[in-house]
Amino acid sequence: MLRARYSRHGTPEEVIEAVELPDPSLQPGEVWLEVLAAPINPSDLLTLSGEYGRLPPLPAFAGNEGVAVVRGRGPGVENLAEGQRVLIPSGAGSWSTHLVAKADALLPLPEAGDVRQLAMLTVNPPAALLMLREFVPLKPGDWVLQNAANSAVGGYLVQLARRQGLRTVNVVRREATADAVRRNGGDVVLLDGDDLPQRVADATGQAAIRLAIDPVGGEVCNRLAACLADGGTLVNYGRMSDQPCQVDPSLLIFHDIQVRGFWLDRWFRQAQPAQRQAVLQELIELIVEGTLHGEVGETFPVQRIKEAVAAAAKGEKNGKVMVVPA
Amino acid sequence: MLRARYSRHGTPEEVIEAVELPDPSLQPGEVWLEVLAAPINPSDLLTLSGEYGRLPPLPAFAGNEGVAVVRGRGPGVENLAEGQRVLIPSGAGSWSTHLVAKADALLPLPEAGDVRQLAMLTVNPPAALLMLREFVPLKPGDWVLQNAANSAVGGYLVQLARRQGLRTVNVVRREATADAVRRNGGDVVLLDGDDLPQRVADATGQAAIRLAIDPVGGEVCNRLAACLADGGTLVNYGRMSDQPCQVDPSLLIFHDIQVRGFWLDRWFRQAQPAQRQAVLQELIELIVEGTLHGEVGETFPVQRIKEAVAAAAKGEKNGKVMVVPA
Repeated sequence: MLRARYSRHGTPEEVIEAVELPDPSLQPGEVWLEVLAAPINPSDLLTLSGEYGRLPPLPAFAGNEGVAVVRGRGPGVENLAEGQRVLIPSGAGSWSTHLVAKADALLPLPEAGDVRQLAMLTVNPPAALLMLREFVPLKPGDWVLQNAANSAVGGYLVQLARRQGLRTVNVVRREATADAVRRNGGDVVLLDGDDLPQRVADATGQAAIRLAIDPVGGEVCNRLAACLADGGTLVNYGRMSDQPCQVDPSLLIFHDIQVRGFWLDRWFRQAQPAQRQAVLQELIELIVEGTLHGEVGETFPVQRIKEAVAAAAKGEKNGKVMVVPA
Repeated sequence: MLRARYSRHGTPEEVIEAVELPDPSLQPGEVWLEVLAAPINPSDLLTLSGEYGRLPPLPAFAGNEGVAVVRGRGPGVENLAEGQRVLIPSGAGSWSTHLVAKADALLPLPEAGDVRQLAMLTVNPPAALLMLREFVPLKPGDWVLQNAANSAVGGYLVQLARRQGLRTVNVVRREATADAVRRNGGDVVLLDGDDLPQRVADATGQAAIRLAIDPVGGEVCNRLAACLADGGTLVNYGRMSDQPCQVDPSLLIFHDIQVRGFWLDRWFRQAQPAQRQAVLQELIELIVEGTLHGEVGETFPVQRIKEAVAAAAKGEKNGKVMVVPA
């Protein structure tokens, strides 16, 4: 089997490498999985560079989500048949042709459902779903503001918000990406700029917006915060700008704006198993019924993992870069 | 009577002026007050410049707190005797030699207690008290981090924290101010600098600090936030740097740091009358018994209000500038 591994932190495409390993013999309770699709997420790149909030001991196998199919069963495995599709658990090192996993840690997938859509299930969609749920109580008709609306999380967020009856104001940096956000169901799409708060007020009929979601950081945080109603919350979940979030004291003090961060990893660790399971099952159903989807970009076999990682690190790309069978 | 008035927003010392007004005749329920001491607070300067979160209609009389003594009573006033000292209510325009007030809006003061200490009662001490109470549950032995510890609020905060059994890490910008903070009872006093988080960890034995309080804004917010334990809260209550608060996404996301603002004006408006009264009575008792005090700086009569406001606007000053009888 071929697996993507790294032994030090640094530039992602430099430190990652594909290594050939002997096929192991299965221990009791283990299954032998063939990986069908495994996305490369921004958090994976931060893990490779050593900037992520939680880092595995080195050397480590890379890749944190994906779909695999059971190709072999060790002694005592009863709950999974050969040919069953499963979600690869977080931390298992999904950028691999094959891997071994404990059978009882695996979530079986239904027969229906596009494999690449299901492979993107556990990182971006729960982030979008939980940021809409965990910070501000929202009811149908309420507006949500988000930045980088053309990102993968942004795309899921538009779809999930719409399904809850929420309306979205979507901020993008380039007109070229605005149409894609509109096609995804974004109610209002605006280019970022100094007068953003005024244009948001105009486009929403001066709605009281209580939640803004941002993966960028930097000065735009202040503009987003200035769009919020008194008592509103700005949730940051990324640092695409590589700048600190900036928010003016007058917004914090006089308008009671709160600035928070969201980390899916923490949520999953702190949640009860039943809560985690419920979130994933809800998203599986939406993907299988076709109401939730993400864009798939370039695909690469594990052999070309350096190219795959370089493609995922590019600023402008169309869809999620994915590791797939050769 | 002489009162400080402004008819437009602008540079505080330019827009403020002392105006002579005829003594009014008292209506039923009104009292005639002689002002004994009225502080000039940073929020007053922001009100004059038009930058404060809530602005009175113009023209307006300036000054939001102080102590006065009853010198005359209109028909039907039974609750206040002549000679009774009272707190001047917020918004009454306390930078005056005299003013008229509704008797039932006035909080009587005990006979004991230094008049200038009592005059500083309603703005800075409740801010310090409430920031220690309203954001993070703290218990004796816990540490609190504060910036600009040599400010008026900072001085009260050190004293109030100590009284609750809390320990304080106090950040200042100049060594010259550090001694005053130590004399006030600050447990640890540190100069701001890039390695602040490491020095705070060293000085507190790596204590889990869950509350940081800042009236400055700008880059120092990031250093303060980096001193906090996971899940900690940074509360901003001022913009001495005239810069937006900066907090790195990694602190928000991976360390669950929350950034909030505190505005006493909002707290007073949203609180029940009994809550407001309880906070003021608690502080009055502490001032009368001598366990809570602030520094008094230069004093000026209303005639010299422009000089007084200019003195209060200076960056470096020792103690609260105050309007007093000629």
